Amino acid sequence: MNERVVVVGGGFGGLLAARGLGEAPLDVTLVDRQNFFLFQPLAYQVATGALSSVEVAAPLRQVLRRHKRTHVMLGEVSGFDLERRVVVVDDLPNGEARRELPYDLLVAAGGSRYSYFGHDGWARFAPELKTLDGALELRDRILTAFEAAEVETDPAVREAFLTFVVVGAGPTGVEMAGQIAELGREVLKGEHRSADTSQVRVLLVEAGDRVLGAYPPRLSASAERQLRSLGVTPLRSAPVVEIGEGFVEVDHQAGARERIGARTVVWAAGVQASPLARTLAEAAGLDTDRAGRLQVEPDLTVPGHPEVFAIGDMVTVRGLTLPGIAPVAMQQGRHVADSIRAGRRQTFRYRNKGELATIGRRRAVGVVAGVPVSGLLAWVLWLGVHITYLVGFENRVLVLTRWAFSYLLHGRGARVIHGRD
Amino acid sequence: MNERVVVVGGGFGGLLAARGLGEAPLDVTLVDRQNFFLFQPLAYQVATGALSSVEVAAPLRQVLRRHKRTHVMLGEVSGFDLERRVVVVDDLPNGEARRELPYDLLVAAGGSRYSYFGHDGWARFAPELKTLDGALELRDRILTAFEAAEVETDPAVREAFLTFVVVGAGPTGVEMAGQIAELGREVLKGEHRSADTSQVRVLLVEAGDRVLGAYPPRLSASAERQLRSLGVTPLRSAPVVEIGEGFVEVDHQAGARERIGARTVVWAAGVQASPLARTLAEAAGLDTDRAGRLQVEPDLTVPGHPEVFAIGDMVTVRGLTLPGIAPVAMQQGRHVADSIRAGRRQTFRYRNKGELATIGRRRAVGVVAGVPVSGLLAWVLWLGVHITYLVGFENRVLVLTRWAFSYLLHGRGARVIHGRD
Repeated sequence: MNERVVVVGGGFGGLLAARGLGEAPLDVTLVDRQNFFLFQPLAYQVATGALSSVEVAAPLRQVLRRHKRTHVMLGEVSGFDLERRVVVVDDLPNGEARRELPYDLLVAAGGSRYSYFGHDGWARFAPELKTLDGALELRDRILTAFEAAEVETDPAVREAFLTFVVVGAGPTGVEMAGQIAELGREVLKGEHRSADTSQVRVLLVEAGDRVLGAYPPRLSASAERQLRSLGVTPLRSAPVVEIGEGFVEVDHQAGARERIGARTVVWAAGVQASPLARTLAEAAGLDTDRAGRLQVEPDLTVPGHPEVFAIGDMVTVRGLTLPGIAPVAMQQGRHVADSIRAGRRQTFRYRNKGELATIGRRRAVGVVAGVPVSGLLAWVLWLGVHITYLVGFENRVLVLTRWAFSYLLHGRGARVIHGRD
Repeated sequence: MNERVVVVGGGFGGLLAARGLGEAPLDVTLVDRQNFFLFQPLAYQVATGALSSVEVAAPLRQVLRRHKRTHVMLGEVSGFDLERRVVVVDDLPNGEARRELPYDLLVAAGGSRYSYFGHDGWARFAPELKTLDGALELRDRILTAFEAAEVETDPAVREAFLTFVVVGAGPTGVEMAGQIAELGREVLKGEHRSADTSQVRVLLVEAGDRVLGAYPPRLSASAERQLRSLGVTPLRSAPVVEIGEGFVEVDHQAGARERIGARTVVWAAGVQASPLARTLAEAAGLDTDRAGRLQVEPDLTVPGHPEVFAIGDMVTVRGLTLPGIAPVAMQQGRHVADSIRAGRRQTFRYRNKGELATIGRRRAVGVVAGVPVSGLLAWVLWLGVHITYLVGFENRVLVLTRWAFSYLLHGRGARVIHGRD
């Protein structure tokens, strides 16, 4: 009988691991609660109507169809028994509440999510952007806010409908803020008759002292200039202290609080490891760090368990400082597959090819092969990289088509508000 | 001040009326509860993962953006006061509960929906296909049923997961049944490992004595042959008498009842006019027929109200028998716009160019310019007509791309199951 490999999580890390093992003489099972791989770096474009949800999602079975020994199983992983070597899977699609899945080798890749810093009640007012359902919920809210502004007759209320607050000025927050500004100023301007959507206010609220804090300061400054030219107002050193119905309250240092009236708030701050990291750590008798991550060995195995790998956003690698971005998870997924196929553990080394964040049409910043880039060049690079890594040739063609229309005609075709029926 | 025209409903009829009035010196307001035009003839392809929801939906504002005097308003029309000439709009996007919209001329185009013949409780077990939300709900159910079959170990339960019942053998039911069969037999066959999805059973249940009852009998027979070649089993003269959790019961004449075990049931039978027809009829002191339709004059005005037009699936035109299909609504929408611009009422004449129903890849039937067609030729005509009438050039390019991939690679890219997160 072939060795059984269970891969938990069908994100960048898990999918690349499963793909890398697809032709090996192993029985691979990929477990995910969703039936699709989400190209998470573009999820924010779903929230602004630039792309449709399925264009950034590839069915896991379709991606893995050529690997005839690879199974895909829908279900929520709720536990690990490292002694008996089983994964506990809940909520199967046939209604089964719980099943145990035995393994010889385990790859855990649960990813990360945003954290509300202990204020889970804020989620209701400020949905987050990590999941497809979150992006669709935000799309409904953003588009409905513009529709509300169109029929609202009270100028103050209309202004609140045209005010959008994005919390967190990492790459996702920056991209999101830029796209909302473009939506109001370029796309909807010619379509609305009563509300002047070009008066849209987009506030990008950040606790740290600059936008894109993980980038070199020069690029943060460039990003901020590009954001301002689009009409986005960055509020730096302004941690959020309260969110409620129709407002966000920030603290401008030394207790100088400001209450911003805004009907639509987007959450893109405070990355936290998937709860799976804690579940796995507890099963192994280990701890997690403040961000909920599990520390793994340089060969990406869980300490004391050479048969268990953990990768991606939910781990830190001993001795390495790595950003929580797709290339890290992808390289780790490939590395684990190589180690398993080779039959021996090897030390993981991250090859930093760079990072890019887009801000709007023809606007971006980034570091490529160690060289800082910004503006049009960075934007062209960003386009090329995202099209290249998008999963599925069909999605590449469709997304390119959408972007071409959006670029040439200032259109946003994917603007359906769901759930009004 | 310009005359005020209110168009209620942004389907084929309402949209064509609004477009036809766009350049006239009139203030036009199109009211719809949704922010998009739905290309309803392709909604079933969303339910089977062939197209994404936004590819069959065009934002109403975008479609009408060039008409600078045309307003779009989101809201649910709940009443008409024909004396005071106002439309009552509920549930506005800014939270307003109710607003009155005055008009000089009114065009009512509320469309139709499926009816459960008084068994509204069946809707829970058998969602309908007229709306985008219904199509997405069905996509979740259909894809989840195949996922359930994959993990299910009891052969009888697995069979029930692989059994699909489509109620109603009109064009939508026929198309849906064909696409589910193709999904199991061609698309998913190579992707599943445990369940043999080519064993999918698709039952097309029809109360009448043939499929596509509105077509010539010869074409019904051809459609039935083509359905069988795809693995669909038509059950004719078999009205549904009960639907519950996991089963559909049909009556094979003379009380011989059969209970079919099926986890997934699709409803596509019993077309009923929008409740708006009744609301409008009551406001005008008129009656509706058994299907809830209002009878209008040959010039498409409501009897006694030359300033009120009613068109599309929600009306019958005195002296004319018209099918409830998009071309009728489109011609009526254009006719009303012409009458209003000309300033005089004209008798509507339907130009019957034909009808086409697709069954699967390279399979279709129809009547074009009075000539019956079937098979590959009908399918090519069907493709051409649907691409031509799809609203929005962007959607045309995207849908053609999807269809090309689907045709060449037997893929179905839009296979996201929502709501599992």
